[in-house]
Parts: sequence; structure tokens; C-alpha cells
Amino acid sequence: MALNHMILSAFFFNPQGDHRMSWRHPRAPGREVFDFDYYRELALVAERAKIDTLFLADHVAIWDSVRSGVAHYANARLEPLTLLSALAGVTRHIGLIATASSSYSEPYNVARMFASLDHISKGRASWNVVTSAMDEEAQNFGRDGNIEHAHRYERGAEFLDTVKALWDSWEDDALLVDKESGYFADPDKVHPINHRGPHLKVRGPLNVPRPPQGHPLIVQAGSSESGKDFATEHADVHFAIFRTKEEGVQYRKDINQRLARHGRRPESFRILPGVLPIVAASEAEGREKQEYLQTLLPDQVGIDLLSSWSGVDLSSYPPDGPLPPLPDESTFNGGRTSLNRVKEWSKQNLTLREIARKLANSGSVPTAVGPPEQIADQLEDWFVSGAADGFNLMFPLLPEDWNNFAEKVVPELQRRGLFRTEYEPGTLRDRLGLTRPANRFAEARDRARAVS
Amino acid sequence: MALNHMILSAFFFNPQGDHRMSWRHPRAPGREVFDFDYYRELALVAERAKIDTLFLADHVAIWDSVRSGVAHYANARLEPLTLLSALAGVTRHIGLIATASSSYSEPYNVARMFASLDHISKGRASWNVVTSAMDEEAQNFGRDGNIEHAHRYERGAEFLDTVKALWDSWEDDALLVDKESGYFADPDKVHPINHRGPHLKVRGPLNVPRPPQGHPLIVQAGSSESGKDFATEHADVHFAIFRTKEEGVQYRKDINQRLARHGRRPESFRILPGVLPIVAASEAEGREKQEYLQTLLPDQVGIDLLSSWSGVDLSSYPPDGPLPPLPDESTFNGGRTSLNRVKEWSKQNLTLREIARKLANSGSVPTAVGPPEQIADQLEDWFVSGAADGFNLMFPLLPEDWNNFAEKVVPELQRRGLFRTEYEPGTLRDRLGLTRPANRFAEARDRARAVS
Repeated sequence: MALNHMILSAFFFNPQGDHRMSWRHPRAPGREVFDFDYYRELALVAERAKIDTLFLADHVAIWDSVRSGVAHYANARLEPLTLLSALAGVTRHIGLIATASSSYSEPYNVARMFASLDHISKGRASWNVVTSAMDEEAQNFGRDGNIEHAHRYERGAEFLDTVKALWDSWEDDALLVDKESGYFADPDKVHPINHRGPHLKVRGPLNVPRPPQGHPLIVQAGSSESGKDFATEHADVHFAIFRTKEEGVQYRKDINQRLARHGRRPESFRILPGVLPIVAASEAEGREKQEYLQTLLPDQVGIDLLSSWSGVDLSSYPPDGPLPPLPDESTFNGGRTSLNRVKEWSKQNLTLREIARKLANSGSVPTAVGPPEQIADQLEDWFVSGAADGFNLMFPLLPEDWNNFAEKVVPELQRRGLFRTEYEPGTLRDRLGLTRPANRFAEARDRARAVS
Repeated sequence: MALNHMILSAFFFNPQGDHRMSWRHPRAPGREVFDFDYYRELALVAERAKIDTLFLADHVAIWDSVRSGVAHYANARLEPLTLLSALAGVTRHIGLIATASSSYSEPYNVARMFASLDHISKGRASWNVVTSAMDEEAQNFGRDGNIEHAHRYERGAEFLDTVKALWDSWEDDALLVDKESGYFADPDKVHPINHRGPHLKVRGPLNVPRPPQGHPLIVQAGSSESGKDFATEHADVHFAIFRTKEEGVQYRKDINQRLARHGRRPESFRILPGVLPIVAASEAEGREKQEYLQTLLPDQVGIDLLSSWSGVDLSSYPPDGPLPPLPDESTFNGGRTSLNRVKEWSKQNLTLREIARKLANSGSVPTAVGPPEQIADQLEDWFVSGAADGFNLMFPLLPEDWNNFAEKVVPELQRRGLFRTEYEPGTLRDRLGLTRPANRFAEARDRARAVS
């Protein structure tokens, strides 16, 4: 289905804001990031503005391979599924995107929690599938180091398909609750999935009826070749990073070709590029605010961050000198999108400190800075040109950049007819114009019937 | 700390009530058991009555090894951690006990979700540790059948200790959030746990600060020898089943001896026996209501249920005949407490149908039936004699038995000074008179200092 307005997703990884050092800002929250009230207020502000989704990124480790990571970086955060479940109880419309790892969870547990959240929220659950690239994560789950890049995605695909099969294990009309006859369910419509693959063995069925959305919305980020193939085969929504509108238009063309290979139409897949919105009286004032955040980065953290992203120990290199040669992508086991961004900056003769500050500032995510009208112009331009179906809003400083956007930019977008003024009825999928997936077991029976 | 009133925990496994066929009762809920509003209302009723905890039991499978299980039994249910997180958002005082399996989860994920729920709820999270005894559960997690009984508890103990170590991995004063100096945390107070045991390898630290309770409250059920040893070494609260007050008094003596072997005092461990409360105008009327529930059990379900609990296929035995010989406990891999209960009924010359109906009716859990004063008499008698620190309330039919207890029995207990009239301030541990656990890493440093 074509979109009649843009999709807006309010994102955070650090609950103090997307700049990695935002926690040090005088107006950033302190210990209240471990208090539910802080998140309820953010969610209610977003819901008043009719924002589509809350999107919580996540890692299953702290970045502690270097001491500066523990000391200076805001590592600790609440867990997305529990936090978004709590928010489900106090919101009515907004979508709830929780990150969970396909490398370090059990498919039965993941299927069950998202199915449960989808019931609790009346069809608002969404899973951001990550394969987890950090060694620190691997070591929290019985491994000595990270799973090799290709295997992570191979397992990820098997994991996701297993979870979807579990969501289908109760057909939509399997639940009878017929008190008179004593039939709680129709046993012909509740299916073991009997999955046996290279990585996983799961019998099923799930012990939760099919979720309201059929399958909770699947989100995927990561623009490596494997990432894009995975997304176009398996996901509904894709979080990408473009520096320019033109890049976004090209990206959509590439994605559409990949979708076609999987028999999918362009409108079955929503692309949300990241943007850093900073509302300010003028663009200059907004840039100043952004630069202030960059000064909060201790050199040591920047160098350690860059070492981690590039896979090279840079601790002995001078902060104002250039980067040494970087590893080849094809043999690199970390996040390849990040490695390639670092490489591009290196080619531009930026110093180590300069690159580190860019990284801390969410890498190459474009900003949208200035008065509300100017930000709306930029988003409108990307949306109407087909570079974006909407935006993943990565506010540098919370809660103020979030509140400013909701209270000042959203009304401007609404005035222009670019954003909803009331939530449409239905599930999250309905609102994003995405169809409810068919049930594989019901389909198989229908096919068998057609043949016989 | 001594208790100055009883502990009351509102329990359910089936959200239609603890009788296995309660879903068929004309006044039982229908499809609304998959709707959050149903649970919010139950929670708010319990909170108005100042009940200590909501206790959600769980399995990670449906009972589908026999077809009658899928057809006639209310297998499907929401997942406890997501549901209790949602309830955390709409309640302020009541404790939240979620069941999670130590056999079929990752300790890092479990530690994180309970830590997160403890922060979200301001110190109200509790984990009911189960080792999962069903073959159907094992098969959802890559295994062909159930883990051998002794190994399940061995792994359970290692799992629980790993989770507790992760909760300690941030010392209580590790979080600094010092914007001026740029120290988010004190790196000397954030610890990898470096666990390497026979079953698990986990590096840590957790990425959530230490929970408000230090460790979320640990609950354990299951009264086999291994179960009692596990509970007295590792748990705070124990859910047990006694048929009589005298049995409860004896049980407490046995438990106290086991506690002493682990260097623990009796008041560090709360025993909550299960009870089935049915408020009615008279005892006779209550019994009639209970017997009506029993008539809702199809014979086929009863026989299949009994086959599953006893480990013997009873499908070819007549429902009104006796049980065949049952397996020996020492070689039985299922729930041994259940097996032993079935054996005792078998000795009483009960027929297969009679035993099946008892099982469906939560086995040998005693009832408390009649007018509110009579129920209060029974609970008072058990509490003041030391047979119970409080009760795990297993309402046969929800929501009415739950509502009746909250609105009629609780005021009677309050009048007698046996139950609180307002929630005391503090965490769930505080309210249960249980001390906040020391942090193992802080203790180790203090010991090292004392020596040097």
C-alpha cells in the first residue's frame, strides 16, 4: 500500500541522546534514565505527536575491552523488551520496536516474548533483529569471540524463519474457547514446526496464539551486502544511513532490485534513514549546540572507540595524526558498515581526533538543524523525492531534542499534510501500510486441497 | 526479620483459574485472557487489597504429546516477563513474580531482564526459578528429551549463581554520572564475573546497574530432596504444598535444619504453602462450586494428564479401574513431587478418574472454603502455628474467586491484625522482611583490605 504520509520513528540507544557523550550535557538526564517515569514521559510526548514508533537499540554487553569505555561512556541501559512492555501498559497507539539478538537468544523465547507483547499492546510489537557484532557480547554467551560475519547472518536467517514459523504455529482461527463442547483449540490448526536446521532444532508449537499482526513487524539495520540481502528477504522495515538525498534514491533502486529477486514489491518494504534533528532558532545556533556536544568527548574515549570500530589498536598513535592502514572488509568480523565509514573519512585526510568526534556523533548520519520550517523542508525533500519512506529520528540530546521535534516540527509537517494528525485505527502494520503475513500452515493446507 | 503479618501471594498458571478446566466455567473469561485489560484489572484489585505479590507460573511449551491436551486444555498463555513488565507500568506497590527457566534461557538475558524489571518497578521484581521438567519443553530448545533430574538442578544452581554474580557486577556505588569529570562509572567497581563452570561460560559485567533490591527476590517451588536443597541454599521464598497444618510445622523444621547447613537463619526464608480459596455463603455451597468444576474435565483429558504425570501410558486402562504399578522415584525424570502424590492416591484405592479429577483440581492443595470468617480462621491457624509465613493463593476460578478473596477475606484478616492495611514503604524484599544481599565484589575487596 502507498504511504500517504511519512513514517516517523523516535529512536535511542543511549537514553541520554544519540551523541555518545550526551550524558555529560548539563541538560541531559542523570540517574533518572534507570527510572520508568523518564521513559513514560518520552513515550507520552511522542504519542501526543502521533509518532509511529519508539525504537530502542541495544547491545548485550558493555563496551569494556578498554578501560575508558567503562569510565567515560554511558554503558548501562535498561533492557528493551521489559521497558517497552512497561510502556505498552501506559500507551495506546505508538509502535514498540525492541532490539533482540538472533545470535544470543533462543528462538522459542524470542517468538514468545514478541507474540506476548503484540497481544498486550493490541498489535504494536516490532522486533529489530540484530546479529550482534561485538566480542564482548559473544563472551557473555559462552563463546571466546564473535561469530564469523557470514555465519551470523546465516544463523540470523534461520533464527528469524524459525520464529516466524512459531508465530504461525497457531492458525488465526485455531483458538475456539468453546466452553460448551470443551474444545479450547482446534487440534488440526495447532502445529508443531519440527524445525531442524544447521544451527537450531525447535519442535513447537508456540504456547501463545498467533499475534494480532500475524508476525510482529520485523526491522533490520545494517547496510553490508549480507545485511541488505537479509533485510530484503526477511524484514518489513529497514533502518539505513545515507549522507545525501541522491544516495537515498540510489539505495532505494538497489533495494527494489533485491526485493524483486525475492518476489516482493517495493511497497512491502519501508526504508527509514537516520537523521539527527536539532531544533534551534537558527542553523548557526543548532550547529553550535552540536559542536558543544563534541567537546564533551575525552580524547582517550575517541581513540578507543575508533580502535574498536576499525579493528586496529590505535592507542599509540597521536590524536592529531592520520589513521594507519585499515583491515580489508572481506576478512573483517565486526560491523562492516562502520569500518567502511571510517575508511572514507581516512581518505579525506581527517585526523584520528576528527574521525573519533564524527564517530561519537553517530558517524555519518546527516543532521537536520535549524528552525522547524527548515527541518520540515529537509524531511519533505527526502520524502517526496523517494529517498525515504520516513525517518529514524536520532536525537542528539534527550529529552529536549525529542520534545522540540514533537512539539515544533511535527505540527509543521502536519500543516503540510506530510504527517498524520490522528492515529489511524488498526495495528502497527496497518498504519505502515504493510500487509498482514499469511499463515504458512493454513497456506499449505489450502495448496494441498487445491491439488487434491 | 520477624513478620508482623502474613504474606499473601496471588498466583495463577491458567489465567482462567487454577482448576485445569476452569476455562469452561460459564463465568470464566474467554478470549480476553489475551488482552492486557483483563490482567490490569486483576492487578488493581490485588493492589487495592494490599496483596504482596502477583505470581505467574509458566511452562515453555504446550502440553501436546496427547491430542486431548491441545483440544481440551487451555494451553496458550502470555509470557510472564512481558506481562508483568506491562503491569509494572500500571501498579505501584505489588510484587511481580515471573517464572523463567534455568534450563532453557541464557543467564545474561535472564539477569538483564529481571534487573531491568527491578529498576522499572522500583524494587518489585522477583524470579521464580524453574528447571523445566517436560519433554515438550526440552524439544523446543534443541534437545530430544528432558534433561536428567539431577543435572537440571545442578545446572539450575550454576545458572542462578551466575545470574546473581551478574547482578553484583556493578557495585552499588559504581554509577557516578559525574558530568563535570566525565566519569559515568567507577571502573574499579564494575566487574567482569569470568564464570567458567561445567554448564556455562559468562564473562560479564551486566549492562544494567545493580537492581534496587540488590538481587530481585528468588522464589522456588518443588519439594523433592533436590528441590528443597536448592531452595534452602539459593532462594528467599519457597512455594510448597502441605495437606495439613501439622505437615507444615514439620516441613518448617526440616527446612530450618537445611538452612542451618548453609549458614542461614529461619527468618531469611519464607514458606508459602498453596491454598485454594473459595468464598461462599456456606462451606457446602463452596464445595458444590468446586465439584461443578470437576465435572468439566473430559475423561480423556484426565487419563492423558495422569499418564503424563505418572510416566505411564494409561490410555488402555478403564477410567473406573485402579492404576497399574508406577515407576520408581529415583529413576523418574519428570516432576517427582507430582509422581509421589499420584502414588499416594493410588494406595488409597482411588480409581483412575478419581485421581485424574484430583490432579486437575491442583492435586493435593488444601482448600479454604466457606464464608470469609471461616477462611480467615483457617489461614490464621496455619500462620500463628508456624506452618506458614503466608499463602500462595491458587484461586480455582478467575476472576471471581480472586475478587471475592480481595474484597471479603482480606478485610477480615486486616480486622484481626493479620494483614497490612497500607503498603509499607520500600522494596519487595523490605516488605517481606528479607535483607538486601551484600555485593560479592565489594565484600571481596573489604576482606582483602582487612587482611592487608
